[in-house]
Amino acid sequence: MKTYINPGENTWTDILKRPLFDVSELHERVQNILTEIREQGDEKLREYTERFDGVKLYNFEVSPEEIAKAEAAIDQDLKDAIALAAENIQAFHSAQMPEVKKMETRTGVICWQKPVAIEKVGLYIPGGTAPLFSTVLMLALPAKIAGCKQIVLCSPPDKNGEIHPAILYAAKVAGVTQIYKLGGVQAIGAMAYGTETVPKTYKIFGPGNQYVTAAKQLVSMNQVSIDMPAGPSEVLVVADETSNPAFVASDLLSQAEHGADSQVVLVTNNENTLKEVVAEVDAQVAQLPRKELAEKALSNSVLIVVSDDAERVDLINEYAPEHLIISTKSYMELAEKITNAGSVFLGEFTPESAGDYASGTNHTLPTNGWARSYSGVNLDSFLKKITFQEINKEGLLAIGPAIEKMAATEQLEAHKNAVTLRLKYLT
Amino acid sequence: MKTYINPGENTWTDILKRPLFDVSELHERVQNILTEIREQGDEKLREYTERFDGVKLYNFEVSPEEIAKAEAAIDQDLKDAIALAAENIQAFHSAQMPEVKKMETRTGVICWQKPVAIEKVGLYIPGGTAPLFSTVLMLALPAKIAGCKQIVLCSPPDKNGEIHPAILYAAKVAGVTQIYKLGGVQAIGAMAYGTETVPKTYKIFGPGNQYVTAAKQLVSMNQVSIDMPAGPSEVLVVADETSNPAFVASDLLSQAEHGADSQVVLVTNNENTLKEVVAEVDAQVAQLPRKELAEKALSNSVLIVVSDDAERVDLINEYAPEHLIISTKSYMELAEKITNAGSVFLGEFTPESAGDYASGTNHTLPTNGWARSYSGVNLDSFLKKITFQEINKEGLLAIGPAIEKMAATEQLEAHKNAVTLRLKYLT
Repeated sequence: MKTYINPGENTWTDILKRPLFDVSELHERVQNILTEIREQGDEKLREYTERFDGVKLYNFEVSPEEIAKAEAAIDQDLKDAIALAAENIQAFHSAQMPEVKKMETRTGVICWQKPVAIEKVGLYIPGGTAPLFSTVLMLALPAKIAGCKQIVLCSPPDKNGEIHPAILYAAKVAGVTQIYKLGGVQAIGAMAYGTETVPKTYKIFGPGNQYVTAAKQLVSMNQVSIDMPAGPSEVLVVADETSNPAFVASDLLSQAEHGADSQVVLVTNNENTLKEVVAEVDAQVAQLPRKELAEKALSNSVLIVVSDDAERVDLINEYAPEHLIISTKSYMELAEKITNAGSVFLGEFTPESAGDYASGTNHTLPTNGWARSYSGVNLDSFLKKITFQEINKEGLLAIGPAIEKMAATEQLEAHKNAVTLRLKYLT
Repeated sequence: MKTYINPGENTWTDILKRPLFDVSELHERVQNILTEIREQGDEKLREYTERFDGVKLYNFEVSPEEIAKAEAAIDQDLKDAIALAAENIQAFHSAQMPEVKKMETRTGVICWQKPVAIEKVGLYIPGGTAPLFSTVLMLALPAKIAGCKQIVLCSPPDKNGEIHPAILYAAKVAGVTQIYKLGGVQAIGAMAYGTETVPKTYKIFGPGNQYVTAAKQLVSMNQVSIDMPAGPSEVLVVADETSNPAFVASDLLSQAEHGADSQVVLVTNNENTLKEVVAEVDAQVAQLPRKELAEKALSNSVLIVVSDDAERVDLINEYAPEHLIISTKSYMELAEKITNAGSVFLGEFTPESAGDYASGTNHTLPTNGWARSYSGVNLDSFLKKITFQEINKEGLLAIGPAIEKMAATEQLEAHKNAVTLRLKYLT
């Protein structure tokens, strides 16, 4: 862990540098696979599934029998936990549905925005040893609330051609309409272009490795939109002398266990807190099953003392953390000054894990500084807002001459004429 | 103009095919220029401005004197028109500010979303003979309402090193904070990376040619976000026997005059209306100053009779038009069934020009079928929503065990431990 005491503002960029996450050198290889999938469909999906996932599949779609089997395999405790999390996620995201507010910008000129669900969405859930069923809830529940008609999920099959039962069960609970055993570039290509069995979708969501990220970037240029650019996960924890060092250490470690490229940052106002937290980290890391991963991430982690209150705010906003945990006495005061962050966790009983799983907020968040311009996934991500306008005679008489003048200045005579014709008819 | 009478649903994709808009073959050339700008800053901006805009500039920033001179050059009628448009745009976009609603998903678990402005935004306004000052209003006014602190505008200089006074005046009215005489790839590179004189921004908005589009795509992968993918403009007009053929023709032509690749589609329920509209188009096009451009766009235009009401809805939603004008008797009935469109214009006194300039809605809209997943520019485009959560003891006791169970199943022991430690402390 690297320690900095009141580093000068001109050094922040260097101190808080993230590892370069540029997948453009993969673009050519990934594009070739995508092009093959676009042109040859299922045949290529089969070929690449055999090559990359090591399993020969004829049918990719998960059957109702497989879902029933998965449901039977899940213990009741996990079902209850999923039910509680789903209920909270549902409550928080349902409250985000925007109202339709008609407004008269001028008498006779009525304008409104109407939220409409994206009809077909694609969700990608990575494979691996740990089944990320919580991400299924985070993506599929808001899609369902938004009113998406087709909610397609792809996740890679294991060597036996199966998807982990927790993923299948969460998909069922959350209202996924179709599940396919497809991973990596194949999955993204299938959902972007559509094949004989997989429907084309309009927006693709979800985490993934660098190949998945490259594929999402490439298809987003011409085919479908995507949730957001991806990068390694990160947390910044703010602590002071009132913070519980064990809690702070546990929060730093829960980020560190994600992987060697995870970003872990501690910001505090005093050296003593820093030392106490370091001692707790050392004690706790020894107990972790993912100890090696966590230690590697910790070796890149940054501990910073910033004595000045205003400077601390600036440093946090400059870094724009995906997760920001404020574990200080006056956490609300600091929270109000945060302008760049994905999700903010307030007070000593609000660990990041709460938002990762069950408090109701979404855990798909902007990393790598994207919090400066991106929101995390929320209900909006599954909606588009269509504008409507209805102008009557009075309205057109009121704004028509201004339109004519502006269109003429932009040398768009036909735009002007569409108004002139109507004004002549009315007068 | 190509005419189709009740074409089979399986032919729609072909009939409504847009021209291919894929700028990826420009990527290498554009990336080279971007890299030079990133590495060499202002020096390269000067070099490319001389090469592409034909003018040697030492300073790019527009001075207060130049803005004052522009203001003096604008006639009062245009000032009044801009004031009226700005007032309506302001009213419509101000009403879009989301409220902060704190909610308790579970007793003791309080979650909320807070809209926060993107601090620095970059707006691109193309050059050319016609000054697109209306786009300045459409982008800068919402940025100002959102609370963006730096609103940077780039627009190419003419041969005399000047920007059209209407653009400068609109920028002043709308609250742009800095204006630079920069066009094309140079402008996008400067706003994405920052140079000695141009500040780095976090999100870039605005229309442009294929080089600008390619540059926006490239920088959006690693540097900044962008408003939306671009493509040629398009309108779909729905008419029936009650529509005024002259009005309908004028709406089709106001789209056609944008350029040879503009998409113009008429959908009607009867052949007679189609014939009347065609006759009116022929009569009106002869009068237009941009006659040749419009005629070229019209040669690609498509006129379709669809007798069946439900089929008409399906065809429109499948096409997902940027602009949709519904000029039929029961326009509201059809409007309610629209799921894919950028902006919808209702009734015979609501030409597209109204939304292009002065009704208050935004005219930066998704083209090329992107309306299936994208909204047009609106207040959201300049905000991100940060989630906050504050959990007290009671709250953590309520959701903690579910988090532990889920984290353990995902094999994230440190995530579990962050809760376990706290629960032990509490019990």
